[in-house]
Amino acid sequence: MSSHHIVRDDQEPALIIANGAACSEELIGQLLEWSPLVVVLDSAIERVLDLGIKVDVLLGDFDRGFNPEYYLEKQYPLEIVYTPNQDKTDLEKAFDYLIEKGHKAVNVIWATGKRADHTITNITNIVAYRNQLKIVVLDDHSKVFLLPNKYEKWYTANTTLSLIPIGKVSGITTKNLFYPLNNEELTIGYRTGSSNHVSQDGIVSIEHKEGDLLLMECWD
Amino acid sequence: MSSHHIVRDDQEPALIIANGAACSEELIGQLLEWSPLVVVLDSAIERVLDLGIKVDVLLGDFDRGFNPEYYLEKQYPLEIVYTPNQDKTDLEKAFDYLIEKGHKAVNVIWATGKRADHTITNITNIVAYRNQLKIVVLDDHSKVFLLPNKYEKWYTANTTLSLIPIGKVSGITTKNLFYPLNNEELTIGYRTGSSNHVSQDGIVSIEHKEGDLLLMECWD
Repeated sequence: MSSHHIVRDDQEPALIIANGAACSEELIGQLLEWSPLVVVLDSAIERVLDLGIKVDVLLGDFDRGFNPEYYLEKQYPLEIVYTPNQDKTDLEKAFDYLIEKGHKAVNVIWATGKRADHTITNITNIVAYRNQLKIVVLDDHSKVFLLPNKYEKWYTANTTLSLIPIGKVSGITTKNLFYPLNNEELTIGYRTGSSNHVSQDGIVSIEHKEGDLLLMECWD
Repeated sequence: MSSHHIVRDDQEPALIIANGAACSEELIGQLLEWSPLVVVLDSAIERVLDLGIKVDVLLGDFDRGFNPEYYLEKQYPLEIVYTPNQDKTDLEKAFDYLIEKGHKAVNVIWATGKRADHTITNITNIVAYRNQLKIVVLDDHSKVFLLPNKYEKWYTANTTLSLIPIGKVSGITTKNLFYPLNNEELTIGYRTGSSNHVSQDGIVSIEHKEGDLLLMECWD
């Protein structure tokens, strides 16, 4: 095990490369620069190695005749983590792995695009890790993360911010958004806060009382 | 208005082309073949006309300096529907338009990919139209629709079927799925039925008592 497998409290987020649509190499490059650990899910390893990326961990259920040992020859060292449990997705199993190893934060790419079931499950299942791991899902048009009950951050005017409730979220109050919410409720499938935007340069405040609320910073 | 704008009870679904990632031309071709009406959302019209597709309706809020009149010159006749209401997405406004015109069913393409907020909102908001319009969202890897309380259909063995609850869905019982559910509950963000599959050639049955349950037929 190389020294960078020792987790420090203040270290940068790990990186998980899932098995959906690839993102731009520019985005991968930015995230790789500081990442202490790169985890790749299942057969995505083929596409990842083609990009010349150094992988630390290959994790998956390796079904459908996939042979992970083959990649030990292509890249060494490589930790292979076999996760046959079918009650969880490979992405959830990668979150569990990182938590067990003491990681506090992770960026996730290639988790969207392609199959709609994978996209919606990968994005929404981050809410179950609220107190265990700080998760950010990124692609070429989106940055997605779970909001704490009180969130404040400086944004430039007109930045698109979408508030997406995973289930029902109550007591939502915002400041400095173009379509403000005042102690209101959002419910997935019926009323979301998609495509809101920042009114003016400055602090945006989003508070909510109950439920799981995702923030999506998105761009076309 | 051409004769195909008269809605018959038994006619094929209309087609909405939204403004996300393009699908294969093969999929568009299949859906166009029988579609009585093609509705395009907002600036997607540029990409759609480039494909040589005949459009009946251009609908949107036409913000960000977009001029719909320009397309009247490029294609005639073309109905332009201006929908400035910011409480709904362009896709929801297109559903409302079709309902008002008497349509019973619609296929939707280009509603996924690109921005994560659009993808998740477009897919999940179909549940609110349960009794008004039969909606199917399609892309190159997925076919998504809302299940009635009792659903039965013949599938070949190993077909991937994902049960995605939009909120909480209770009393789910399945037959002929590899991971069966027996009067169980699924909750978005916590427990979904993603990546199940058909056990053997034959009828699959999926029943649920309460809530909004999407079925996603997906393939890699």
